[in-house]
Amino acid sequence: MHSLASIQELLSPLFPGLMGMQLTEVDLERVVGTLTVRPDLCTVGNTVHGGALMAFADTLGAVGTFINLPEGKRTTTVESSTKFIGAARAGSTVVGECTAFHRGKTTMVWQTVIKSEDGKLCAVVTQTQVVLGI
Amino acid sequence: MHSLASIQELLSPLFPGLMGMQLTEVDLERVVGTLTVRPDLCTVGNTVHGGALMAFADTLGAVGTFINLPEGKRTTTVESSTKFIGAARAGSTVVGECTAFHRGKTTMVWQTVIKSEDGKLCAVVTQTQVVLGI
Amino acid sequence: MHSLASIQELLSPLFPGLMGMQLTEVDLERVVGTLTVRPDLCTVGNTVHGGALMAFADTLGAVGTFINLPEGKRTTTVESSTKFIGAARAGSTVVGECTAFHRGKTTMVWQTVIKSEDGKLCAVVTQTQVVLGI
Amino acid sequence: MHSLASIQELLSPLFPGLMGMQLTEVDLERVVGTLTVRPDLCTVGNTVHGGALMAFADTLGAVGTFINLPEGKRTTTVESSTKFIGAARAGSTVVGECTAFHRGKTTMVWQTVIKSEDGKLCAVVTQTQVVLGI
Repeated sequence: MHSLASIQELLSPLFPGLMGMQLTEVDLERVVGTLTVRPDLCTVGNTVHGGALMAFADTLGAVGTFINLPEGKRTTTVESSTKFIGAARAGSTVVGECTAFHRGKTTMVWQTVIKSEDGKLCAVVTQTQVVLGI
Repeated sequence: MHSLASIQELLSPLFPGLMGMQLTEVDLERVVGTLTVRPDLCTVGNTVHGGALMAFADTLGAVGTFINLPEGKRTTTVESSTKFIGAARAGSTVVGECTAFHRGKTTMVWQTVIKSEDGKLCAVVTQTQVVLGI
Repeated sequence: MHSLASIQELLSPLFPGLMGMQLTEVDLERVVGTLTVRPDLCTVGNTVHGGALMAFADTLGAVGTFINLPEGKRTTTVESSTKFIGAARAGSTVVGECTAFHRGKTTMVWQTVIKSEDGKLCAVVTQTQVVLGI
Repeated sequence: MHSLASIQELLSPLFPGLMGMQLTEVDLERVVGTLTVRPDLCTVGNTVHGGALMAFADTLGAVGTFINLPEGKRTTTVESSTKFIGAARAGSTVVGECTAFHRGKTTMVWQTVIKSEDGKLCAVVTQTQVVLGI
């Protein structure tokens, strides 16, 4: 199993690093992270850009799949769907908790619930990952 | 109607600016943009991060809704769903073309088709925007 | 609040009645129902048709919204997305449990988890309802 | 390649037969069908039930995948997402046109556009099928 620190380091030069997202928990059935809503992660109106929330969740689900992969396999997201429910203001931090609906040999299905720091629901992202040979 | 340049400027300090996305066409029924796949927009494997594609498309659909809004209204994305089909490599540029399925009084539905510079399909994003009072 | 029996009767001449779905619990935050997988609800291979599962879930979410509507309002589904995870065989019964992610003034978001009678996950359906004037 | 008539006959005792859907065109890149909105395919208000539209589309996409399968393979829907845009009244007939975004070795992606008989858009359904061994 990969450590949280090694995965965080792997992501650092990539898009999750650009956004500044932090992993806080990496378990086989649950991956948790935080994202501070910098102004440059916002849309008009000083609230978090929906795309930043989707990218944040997509990363958590990909990490979840990655750590569950058998040796010699890789993964890619085939589908992601998001319901946007509440806004998060610039300067606040959101928490994403990603849990598995399904961890199979050919597909995995993960759902990320993103909440504001005071526990208000911001978005729910459900995604399907395929498991592929290398 | 808002000009392409004024919208591009509005987006510049925001998440679309951080990603470096460019608008190239802004019409009432069609919004087109490009995104150069910088290394910091990638995931593991030097291909574009799915979240960057989703954020790119979400911006195009929001721009499409924005320019169609009646005076005194605003919009937010309520739902977005994406099928990921092909990868785009670091250093390449992808093109997103967003067209309207529906432009109604309470909701608008947009679909963005994202292709690589050689015309290969990368992703299809379909999103629903609600039209709200201010 | 509407009774389970009155809603079941309302649905009886409609599509949920054609499929033979039964409501078993109707609360403001949770709606539960069952569907027996008759052969004419199947696809090739004697397993439940994905469309039957989507229709089953859509009904549960619409009932959940309906019973939460303020006086003088109506609802329609604007978006539904489904992950199919496991099959259910002809002759078995599936259970759908629908709970609310969000019950707002303009939209409600519901998620239905459908399981086989032995508790195996079949599908997860997440849908957005808009609340409209009459 | 399978004939339209043989596929229609295969579907007849199954859910598509219960709903009365008809295939009208079956090509490798395009599958078209019709569905007459019988009262028992409706929801409250004498308009077609969203679930009937989703089941109709799901069938078209599955047929499209089926006829593209290599020998010795089968398919299942892994994900379907639908935007509902306009209603169709009881007694009318809707037409669904399903075309391929992607027909790959491991997945196929299809989109069905459903319109009323006078050409008004009712729904757009996008679905991902996996290709599996038998």
